[in-house]
Amino acid sequence: MALVVAKFGGSSVATAERIKNVAARLVRRHNAGDQVVAVVSAMGDNTDYLVDLAHSVNPNPPVREMDMLLSTGEQVSVAVLAMAIEALGVRAISHTGAQVGIHTDDTHTKAKISHISGDQIARDLAQDKVVVVAGFQGIDSRGEITTLGRGGSDTTAVALAAAIHADLCEIYSDVDGVYSADPRVCPKAHRLDSLSYEEMLELSANGAGVLQLRAVEFARNYGVVIHALSSFVEGPGTYIKEAEENMESDKMEGPVISGVAHDLSEAKITLRHVPDTKGVAALLFERMAELNVNVDMIIQDVSHDGMTDISFTAPLDDVERLTPACQQISDQIHAEGVEINTHVAKVSLVGAGMKSYPGVSAKMFRVLADVGVNISMISTSPIRISIVIDADQCQLAVRALHTAFGLDDASDGSDSVKVVR
Amino acid sequence: MALVVAKFGGSSVATAERIKNVAARLVRRHNAGDQVVAVVSAMGDNTDYLVDLAHSVNPNPPVREMDMLLSTGEQVSVAVLAMAIEALGVRAISHTGAQVGIHTDDTHTKAKISHISGDQIARDLAQDKVVVVAGFQGIDSRGEITTLGRGGSDTTAVALAAAIHADLCEIYSDVDGVYSADPRVCPKAHRLDSLSYEEMLELSANGAGVLQLRAVEFARNYGVVIHALSSFVEGPGTYIKEAEENMESDKMEGPVISGVAHDLSEAKITLRHVPDTKGVAALLFERMAELNVNVDMIIQDVSHDGMTDISFTAPLDDVERLTPACQQISDQIHAEGVEINTHVAKVSLVGAGMKSYPGVSAKMFRVLADVGVNISMISTSPIRISIVIDADQCQLAVRALHTAFGLDDASDGSDSVKVVR
Repeated sequence: MALVVAKFGGSSVATAERIKNVAARLVRRHNAGDQVVAVVSAMGDNTDYLVDLAHSVNPNPPVREMDMLLSTGEQVSVAVLAMAIEALGVRAISHTGAQVGIHTDDTHTKAKISHISGDQIARDLAQDKVVVVAGFQGIDSRGEITTLGRGGSDTTAVALAAAIHADLCEIYSDVDGVYSADPRVCPKAHRLDSLSYEEMLELSANGAGVLQLRAVEFARNYGVVIHALSSFVEGPGTYIKEAEENMESDKMEGPVISGVAHDLSEAKITLRHVPDTKGVAALLFERMAELNVNVDMIIQDVSHDGMTDISFTAPLDDVERLTPACQQISDQIHAEGVEINTHVAKVSLVGAGMKSYPGVSAKMFRVLADVGVNISMISTSPIRISIVIDADQCQLAVRALHTAFGLDDASDGSDSVKVVR
Repeated sequence: MALVVAKFGGSSVATAERIKNVAARLVRRHNAGDQVVAVVSAMGDNTDYLVDLAHSVNPNPPVREMDMLLSTGEQVSVAVLAMAIEALGVRAISHTGAQVGIHTDDTHTKAKISHISGDQIARDLAQDKVVVVAGFQGIDSRGEITTLGRGGSDTTAVALAAAIHADLCEIYSDVDGVYSADPRVCPKAHRLDSLSYEEMLELSANGAGVLQLRAVEFARNYGVVIHALSSFVEGPGTYIKEAEENMESDKMEGPVISGVAHDLSEAKITLRHVPDTKGVAALLFERMAELNVNVDMIIQDVSHDGMTDISFTAPLDDVERLTPACQQISDQIHAEGVEINTHVAKVSLVGAGMKSYPGVSAKMFRVLADVGVNISMISTSPIRISIVIDADQCQLAVRALHTAFGLDDASDGSDSVKVVR
């Protein structure tokens, strides 16, 4: 008997029929003797509908009211899922974030979980019920409804799993696990059996959309084992867990590289010919922080004659906000000007094994040079190498690296699982 | 400065555009110096959508989950209305039934309000906010979400008005007041300026759909003055208040008859040739009560040779449920059989003035006889006379009575307000 938290995203509960499928899956699990807590997102595009509704009456709706509004989406899906489970003869009970004791800070629309009281869930499980919890939402100390923002439902699931000491946190989505690359870009990509938290963090942070970065961080901090699965096809999925456990269960020497991630959602911003005086970088990135711009890679060239270039990447969504500020700083420090390139790709090689294999970056650059890809920025972590290249060369680079680092699927592809989007 | 509770039904907030209109109305009120608490139903047919969704996964959904589900409808409308008010530059705050302290018993889907704590509303009003409260819902002593069932939003509004000692409870709907008859049946019907609680109770209980019986009862018990208005057209509406107040403000001698109501939603059930022994009626109506059948009029004929007929009316919706029970009792007491007529109308003459005017019933029967309407049941209260007739004669009867009792609109009709449905 295991205690399992199972999280289902919006596409998994988009219709009454899909909700019934999720119910059937949970009931099989319950009848096999497991204790089951389901965490559910809002149905399909219901959240988009509600956001549109809000903007149609107020272009800048108050965040408190936004949370009142958006939290209804998950309340609908948990109630309907509980009904569907009961229809199959198993007792079920749904809870809002407030009812189940998911306490957050008071930052409406992007609240952080402060603590979870698992008492209610324990009582429900003791009564042999399947517990269905609204993801994405909580309650603050004043009793106000909050939402957790992007990736909130994954985070709810992982945090709940930590709070009730679940054996496993299953995350069901429309893909059947974590892949060595995005199969839409790299047809030879294969599903990974398991990954360390650190590898998953690097993949999530660098464009792999399967799991939200925030949820993976939470899982690492509390040692929650995540199992990423498809809600549409049966399959072994991907485990995300401590690297040590990987080493025990899998072969002693893991592969050098686990995957190739890519990200087309960033822009590259360059301040050219900056006088290399103290505090210029501080000035620039303090201003970006004030503007809440999520700066990713930062490169400062070696100084020539007291002049340097400063480049960084930031989300495309932030470009409009950061451009005038960069221009102003450029004028202020007498730089030559600001260059913005919105047509770039970030390609990352991720693998816990690369720590003990020197020469990975050298090989990466050689492979790319051989296929004619020009690298414009480089950044590294102990288990990742990221480069920025022209967006048009993204697919070429991902495929070349995937092959060169031995990640190509060995099978003939006949039993490969179709990715449902 | 007045403290006003204003309730808007589902059709008044069916679209973003209509919500903006409601917001504008509330803001005008607020800017004129009034303190405003709005009570809102779910948007248009949202509740129907949710009910259908529930039934598509479970033909018999658990009532607790039904309340979890349905309560989201009002939560959406209050959040969006609060946003729309804020867009007009006035501070607003929305509340669920739970947040605003509407405490109920634990009868899911038809809970009764036990008490309301007005503290939250008082705090919000003190901060110069328009307060927007979800109608139809509350919270029980275990923290579970409950809904109030039919007429719940009207009842929320009146109960809130009582709890915070509001000067007035405005009920906005798609009609501009209470009419002397249903204008769709009787084109000469006119809007009433005011009515006593008792008259409104009789009208609501006998087919007039403007206000829910339950809300009017609540208003009478707590002395809340109701003002029924249209949310689509400006107009003086109808006041419902203590009869004494009516007498003071209107002419000393009120009209004998206030209105003619009709109801096509009932069936007439007759047990024929029943042995007139003790306890037969008790047996029958105890059984109906067990089946939760809402019995309305009851007639037992004078006994002939120890035999009698027992007739009663009950909602058409209950006929399927009550028929086998009636048949069984008929067999048990050796009656001749059960006759069910689903094609009947109940027509009621209502007026506080009839108490002091003898001969109203005689005149009523004469008028109907003259136009050829056959009466099959009669029941009376001090301020009402109801008859059951063939459904085909309903319109004829209503029009004839409306004219005979001097209720026809004296105007040429050019300024009569169109009823929006």
